[in-house]
Amino acid sequence: MPQKASDGQRHLLVAHGGGPTAVINASLAGIITEARRHPRIGKIFAARGGIEGVLKDDLIDLTDIPAESLEKLKRTPSSAIGSCRYKVGEKDYPRIVEVLRTRGIGYFLYTGGNDSMDTSLKLSGLQADCLVAGVPKTIDNDLAGTDHSPGFGSAARFIAVSTAEVCLDIRALNNQVSVLEVMGRNAGWLAAASTLAGELDSEFPKIILTPERPFDEERFLTAVEAAWKERRTVVIVASEGLRSRDGNPLGTEGGAASVDSFGHALPGGVSHHLAALISGKAGIRARSEKPGLLGRASLALVSEVDRAESELAGSEAVRRLCDGESGFMIGFRRVSDEPYRVEPVSVPLTEVANVERLLPASYLTSDGFHMNEQFSRYCRPLMGGDPFGGYFLLRR
Amino acid sequence: MPQKASDGQRHLLVAHGGGPTAVINASLAGIITEARRHPRIGKIFAARGGIEGVLKDDLIDLTDIPAESLEKLKRTPSSAIGSCRYKVGEKDYPRIVEVLRTRGIGYFLYTGGNDSMDTSLKLSGLQADCLVAGVPKTIDNDLAGTDHSPGFGSAARFIAVSTAEVCLDIRALNNQVSVLEVMGRNAGWLAAASTLAGELDSEFPKIILTPERPFDEERFLTAVEAAWKERRTVVIVASEGLRSRDGNPLGTEGGAASVDSFGHALPGGVSHHLAALISGKAGIRARSEKPGLLGRASLALVSEVDRAESELAGSEAVRRLCDGESGFMIGFRRVSDEPYRVEPVSVPLTEVANVERLLPASYLTSDGFHMNEQFSRYCRPLMGGDPFGGYFLLRR
Repeated sequence: MPQKASDGQRHLLVAHGGGPTAVINASLAGIITEARRHPRIGKIFAARGGIEGVLKDDLIDLTDIPAESLEKLKRTPSSAIGSCRYKVGEKDYPRIVEVLRTRGIGYFLYTGGNDSMDTSLKLSGLQADCLVAGVPKTIDNDLAGTDHSPGFGSAARFIAVSTAEVCLDIRALNNQVSVLEVMGRNAGWLAAASTLAGELDSEFPKIILTPERPFDEERFLTAVEAAWKERRTVVIVASEGLRSRDGNPLGTEGGAASVDSFGHALPGGVSHHLAALISGKAGIRARSEKPGLLGRASLALVSEVDRAESELAGSEAVRRLCDGESGFMIGFRRVSDEPYRVEPVSVPLTEVANVERLLPASYLTSDGFHMNEQFSRYCRPLMGGDPFGGYFLLRR
Repeated sequence: MPQKASDGQRHLLVAHGGGPTAVINASLAGIITEARRHPRIGKIFAARGGIEGVLKDDLIDLTDIPAESLEKLKRTPSSAIGSCRYKVGEKDYPRIVEVLRTRGIGYFLYTGGNDSMDTSLKLSGLQADCLVAGVPKTIDNDLAGTDHSPGFGSAARFIAVSTAEVCLDIRALNNQVSVLEVMGRNAGWLAAASTLAGELDSEFPKIILTPERPFDEERFLTAVEAAWKERRTVVIVASEGLRSRDGNPLGTEGGAASVDSFGHALPGGVSHHLAALISGKAGIRARSEKPGLLGRASLALVSEVDRAESELAGSEAVRRLCDGESGFMIGFRRVSDEPYRVEPVSVPLTEVANVERLLPASYLTSDGFHMNEQFSRYCRPLMGGDPFGGYFLLRR
């Protein structure tokens, strides 16, 4: 059922790509709010379930979403319209273009990470009468062309607070080791964010393992044993994507045991693996925590800075589309750390698509197990205010 | 160094037992605040690191803790004074009595669960000049003699909210199964609390597994497959304490693999085990989340009702000690569900010590995979206000 726009009007379509974040809906709200201000934009559509919704022509009309719902949407984690991990192939583009044409879409916004930006780039070259913008979204913070990505600040706040709280709990009982697993398959930005727990107590956490550095079992166990000797409470933060020197993901070296009869990789468990290692090789009983999806879905730990910036990324993308720009992603340029100030910029999608921005080695301390103050200065403002002002610690 | 009290004054000592909660410090704050009001109480001591602190005569003087710190203490998760899991043996009592005598302790408060209440009971029979009170604390909600225990409401709020957020995330991406592991070795109260996620969407969560019912692999896989067929997003909540029919904890049946060379049980993983089971036997890829300690350490998800009641349990215990009562635990009697009203009561420790209150079967639906409205009516007010009012869901 083709939708006809009024004279000169073109419709807008937004789709979500990849894993959701705690603030991707805030970008959606920003898009809707801004789009309503522009008379040349007709209806506001969202693809249900990501790009698959476009391929299936399954669109939701959000033009008249009530103000109260829009306010709630801004604060609701996960994606309200749905997303997917479908990898768009060459064969899919003609169908996407067909749907956009039939539906009278003149403005297409794709909120996602690297893959989504690649798709956006390709689409922007295919269809002259549909302007295309990328809206950044990733808890992994691995998008190029921007100081940081919407979604990261909230996930960083979650990790910093969760690390501090696990440390508080572990310390209360003494004689304990815990390995906290955090998301991040290739990039260590989120694991690095746990260093901010040090603002509550400089001993939080003891060891941080990022995936950019191959895991060295011997060095790790030596560090754990030293930390254990010093103060019999040790918290280790580990990226889910840790790899051994030969490039194999940790926790999957079980060979046959790591793949089920359908060929699926079994749910790994870096934390599980490391806890077993500490227990088995160092003889120190260790437990593990793996908040997993909670790390990107927590409303209570949303960073207000992140939320506001996510909304801004959405509205800024619409503004630029209405100015005739296409083939860009919204990025943030940092003006200053303190007071924190950024400005939205437009980044050519050619500079973003399929580039993976890893955690720079310059942020690590010389032992490779901690982050330095330079990283904290970078990360602190993104978390949206000091999360540790309310805790009481008894000083020894 | 014995502490001399002024004429007629006796000192107060508080100790924490077992795993901390998000609100055990609120009970401590309640004790301190109330104790300061009673002229017959001299100094206010806390045992560092639980009953081991008493045995080692390692006490902290909290008499003059500043008002601002006291306010923060009320809201800081974990135990600020430390706790332990040391099982007090017969040989330890003379030493405890000696420390209490030497220190001039006339009021002893033990904040903890079943074991701590047992110790409190024994102590109250041993030393006539020291009055003893138990202050309830357990996220497991398994203490007898009370409608519920301080610590449970906050952990329940964490589980209900986390379940809802995992469900939101899983649903956004579609074609996913997740197993969320929650604390509770023997009692299913916490797993049951996940049913409240249904107040956000009646489909949250799909299956709840409590440890009171032996795990039936076949029935479980049938239920998972049915749920998967119906709507290809399934979230399962499982108690860490799940056992098979022969009484073995799930996830430890690996035999030798489940125990390290030091004889330590390796960190199990009911969620890990169930995800592998679903993946391996039903051919449905499944992931797992295990927030672990986060479930009892989250400041952001503290229930204000729980916090206030925890403080009240502490202050009420001091009041009753000052009235000359001994050998009791503070409990809560529920006056009404709606509006929620409870009153603190005094429960003889003889009725509490070593009794484990499991989740009654009457709270389960007939399929055993859900909780009924009777349970929700019980649990809802403990979480301290509707946690789901702020979320936006797009209705299909």
